[in-house]
Amino acid sequence: MLAYFGPQGTFTEQAARAFSADDELVPFDTVPAALAAARRGEVDAACVPVENSVEGAVPATMDALAEGDPLVATAETVLDVRFSVLVRPGGGEPRTIASHPHALAQVRHWIAENLPTATAVATTSTAAAARSVLAGEFDAAVSAPVAVRHYPLEVLATDVADVRDAKTRFLLLRRPGRLPEPTGHDRTSVVVTATDRVGALSDLLAELALRRINLTRIESRPTKGRLGEYRFYIDLDGHAAEPGVGDALAALRRHCPDTRFLGSYPKAEPGGAPAGTGDFVAAAEWVASLREGRGA
Amino acid sequence: MLAYFGPQGTFTEQAARAFSADDELVPFDTVPAALAAARRGEVDAACVPVENSVEGAVPATMDALAEGDPLVATAETVLDVRFSVLVRPGGGEPRTIASHPHALAQVRHWIAENLPTATAVATTSTAAAARSVLAGEFDAAVSAPVAVRHYPLEVLATDVADVRDAKTRFLLLRRPGRLPEPTGHDRTSVVVTATDRVGALSDLLAELALRRINLTRIESRPTKGRLGEYRFYIDLDGHAAEPGVGDALAALRRHCPDTRFLGSYPKAEPGGAPAGTGDFVAAAEWVASLREGRGA
Amino acid sequence: MLAYFGPQGTFTEQAARAFSADDELVPFDTVPAALAAARRGEVDAACVPVENSVEGAVPATMDALAEGDPLVATAETVLDVRFSVLVRPGGGEPRTIASHPHALAQVRHWIAENLPTATAVATTSTAAAARSVLAGEFDAAVSAPVAVRHYPLEVLATDVADVRDAKTRFLLLRRPGRLPEPTGHDRTSVVVTATDRVGALSDLLAELALRRINLTRIESRPTKGRLGEYRFYIDLDGHAAEPGVGDALAALRRHCPDTRFLGSYPKAEPGGAPAGTGDFVAAAEWVASLREGRGA
Amino acid sequence: MLAYFGPQGTFTEQAARAFSADDELVPFDTVPAALAAARRGEVDAACVPVENSVEGAVPATMDALAEGDPLVATAETVLDVRFSVLVRPGGGEPRTIASHPHALAQVRHWIAENLPTATAVATTSTAAAARSVLAGEFDAAVSAPVAVRHYPLEVLATDVADVRDAKTRFLLLRRPGRLPEPTGHDRTSVVVTATDRVGALSDLLAELALRRINLTRIESRPTKGRLGEYRFYIDLDGHAAEPGVGDALAALRRHCPDTRFLGSYPKAEPGGAPAGTGDFVAAAEWVASLREGRGA
Repeated sequence: MLAYFGPQGTFTEQAARAFSADDELVPFDTVPAALAAARRGEVDAACVPVENSVEGAVPATMDALAEGDPLVATAETVLDVRFSVLVRPGGGEPRTIASHPHALAQVRHWIAENLPTATAVATTSTAAAARSVLAGEFDAAVSAPVAVRHYPLEVLATDVADVRDAKTRFLLLRRPGRLPEPTGHDRTSVVVTATDRVGALSDLLAELALRRINLTRIESRPTKGRLGEYRFYIDLDGHAAEPGVGDALAALRRHCPDTRFLGSYPKAEPGGAPAGTGDFVAAAEWVASLREGRGA
Repeated sequence: MLAYFGPQGTFTEQAARAFSADDELVPFDTVPAALAAARRGEVDAACVPVENSVEGAVPATMDALAEGDPLVATAETVLDVRFSVLVRPGGGEPRTIASHPHALAQVRHWIAENLPTATAVATTSTAAAARSVLAGEFDAAVSAPVAVRHYPLEVLATDVADVRDAKTRFLLLRRPGRLPEPTGHDRTSVVVTATDRVGALSDLLAELALRRINLTRIESRPTKGRLGEYRFYIDLDGHAAEPGVGDALAALRRHCPDTRFLGSYPKAEPGGAPAGTGDFVAAAEWVASLREGRGA
Repeated sequence: MLAYFGPQGTFTEQAARAFSADDELVPFDTVPAALAAARRGEVDAACVPVENSVEGAVPATMDALAEGDPLVATAETVLDVRFSVLVRPGGGEPRTIASHPHALAQVRHWIAENLPTATAVATTSTAAAARSVLAGEFDAAVSAPVAVRHYPLEVLATDVADVRDAKTRFLLLRRPGRLPEPTGHDRTSVVVTATDRVGALSDLLAELALRRINLTRIESRPTKGRLGEYRFYIDLDGHAAEPGVGDALAALRRHCPDTRFLGSYPKAEPGGAPAGTGDFVAAAEWVASLREGRGA
Repeated sequence: MLAYFGPQGTFTEQAARAFSADDELVPFDTVPAALAAARRGEVDAACVPVENSVEGAVPATMDALAEGDPLVATAETVLDVRFSVLVRPGGGEPRTIASHPHALAQVRHWIAENLPTATAVATTSTAAAARSVLAGEFDAAVSAPVAVRHYPLEVLATDVADVRDAKTRFLLLRRPGRLPEPTGHDRTSVVVTATDRVGALSDLLAELALRRINLTRIESRPTKGRLGEYRFYIDLDGHAAEPGVGDALAALRRHCPDTRFLGSYPKAEPGGAPAGTGDFVAAAEWVASLREGRGA
């Protein structure tokens, strides 16, 4: 059973289906609610958007992951943000077209070219837009492709997006347990809390750079209620089971005892730097040999 | 004349008023539209949310600032995210309470305690909620305090917020021109584009740390359309006119020729590290003396 | 049996006696010869000067340690460079005073004040000076205090030194074996070979600094016959058996596979930074817990 | 008029002649004495060995440069340490061969092969060996090639050296004045005093590495009389008149106000990294444009 940040018919549901075609999917009103269900063990995992979302859910996800009982990502998926435009069967030329404002912003040019006389109307989600069309309130909805599974609407257009490369990344989060096996192209996510000592973040990134570990995302957020303290959300290339990444995680933890592991999981998309250079195993063995008087 | 990201009655309007009590304020539908008006010189400046916004506008602001003709912040303001609950005069106990979903999420406990039987209804903005109450559609609106200036509603409650320290930061952006005078507690914003060479960001932050310049915010965003390339938005303590910050900006620019300056302006809130240690002026004079054969 | 860089009667013999009051001491003509005896197992250990020596032996020691079969220091001692002035019994006012040129340089003021009419004569070692006095060739010798054990001369003055804090540091070197127990105030010596890639040394020192490991000495020497390649001799505070130092050594080894361990041994003199901050054991356990799915 | 560290007939005299074929050369007994003559203006410049010397003079040079009135190197020269073996004309097969012990160490194999029955005898300098041969005391001298200019001896062999690449580097030091013109392959020498704060040296080297400035030599020496304080002698590629090197020198000076410039001068030997990457001039101009409101 899989929780996801609902309602039905959004990109997050689509991501949840990508994670698990067979599981029962349960929508929750908010990201924290979906994560809480996973924390309590009511569901096996929760699917939430984490980055670059058109639905604005990112800060909610980040805050919810940094506090409370730990959850660990075991998979990610990235969806192209390409919309379907849904209409009532036989509804004629749409005069109103509804969606979440962020979605409308991403299809503005398409509307101007294809439905130049239509009025764009804002709803609270892309799924709500579909429901409003079904209810006859508006004529067309800019929705996630999955919405058509839930609402008996007709697809007027698919693959609609002014910007070709808009994407949303989703994580599948579980209670800590066995890590996914390393695949050679994994990502590790971590959140580090640091006081604003000048140079604290510089030290953390130097620990990664010295191990040739590539950072693919960083975002600071002030810690609630403690002035001058920041959380840094860092995604890096590699898997905690790999010697170099494990070594780097230990270094981050030494600098910041509040370091929280958010998971190692296969990257949804190819690319990224190769795993850390240097033979961590050989170096550790060398130190062991020194300590035992077997070498120099 | 001041553009702002509208509609009327939101926190952004309230921020715009904080920047300029007297100027004429012009709402724009989107952040890019408000900024475009400033770029074209149709308005003197534009007020947009930049960080931690309840309205999800941050990525829009950041993307819009990183591309197109340059705009430079000359002021910031930080608003506590504390809502007013507005009702129609003489409307009785509200049975529905409307607002943007993010706003509703931030007053959930207040509603549970004060209007336990009310149904929360999502609208597309906090201002839209106020309008819907005025129209009789819903009974109460969770709105920015400024909304009451525009809608003849009654204030049922003020200072409503489950979380005490939620804040939104706004920038006032202008075409490049004379910088604000340094005040001794300024912030400088910059956006740097770096390829994902391992260690690129580590080098940038080392440049700051070695000059004892404090970083107060960092956020990466992938560059549209160029895989493996990132933009890093960095806020740091100090003013470009100060020798240490100027020296640091030059260093960032050497590493990343795409570095874009987003302004030096007084910090809205106290705190932060003191200005960079080390006497940059004396050191520069020493090098000049070496070059001229006057010292060693 | 202990080899030392002779001849008899020098500060190095005095250091060898400080290491081992009871062992048989065997002088060798050169540092490499003394070390070779230890390498071959003909002696248990070799005592050689390593730093700041008045006898110029440092480069010889460093080169000899960096190549050939490994030797590891198990102890150090630091001698104040304070000379005795030796004369023949009943020899009258000295008109000539002999010593190694470096020693003469260090007692110039003493001679000017105490034997203003004496002529300073250079010999090949401080011990050779004593022998020349014994032989009647010269009238006074500036020697190591220990010289008087070997030559039946009279001590005209002790504790002679223009500069009060001149010191020579000596190492006791053995074939790799059980390390001395950590005492809490140890030193670790290492030699690292790095090509002249810009920043190679900077990376090595960052590895130490990030672990709060204090460096007490560094010296580069070009590698014989390979242009643009350097050896860096580094002394640092701490013991290889300590988690932080072990971790740092592994890091150096990853950067430079030619890293050679030269020993961990109690510091002869107090002072130095406390051992590396951060709990290396706790951090390693945390990573183990992540990998086993027990935490985050 | 040129001072040099004598006596006549050594490699240092040979280096002095390389610096200036025409000047009058004045030998001084010690490095400090030669430098003092330059400081007082009695000579135009002083030639002293600085690195890897077979005569052990390096520490003396380094200490003398770090204290007292400033002197600045304007040239360097590197001599191959290849000896001549000098004998009295018609003297027959040598039975004794004299030299400074370091020189003897460097020709051991040559002696074993070419004069297998000769006894090696130590003298206080290579020049003293030549004088002793002239005096009939010993039969052969291992000397600097220049010695034959001063002593009417016969050259038995030239180019004698067991190790092919032994070299000594010499500096020509003057009172501060006009720097030599940059040639594109220069070296800059500097001495920096730093307390033993963990990481102080790491910061200094990071300043160089971040500017892609190559370090060709580093040596620490404890500061006399101040425990836990070190001097770091650093040679780097480039010229103080170059923007990048000047910028780096200013950075070192900010970290360590005791930083002393020891000169920028053409490298005696080819090689080394190209001058610092990044356009320092363009970056400085960009910052100026920001400050003047001309750009972003």
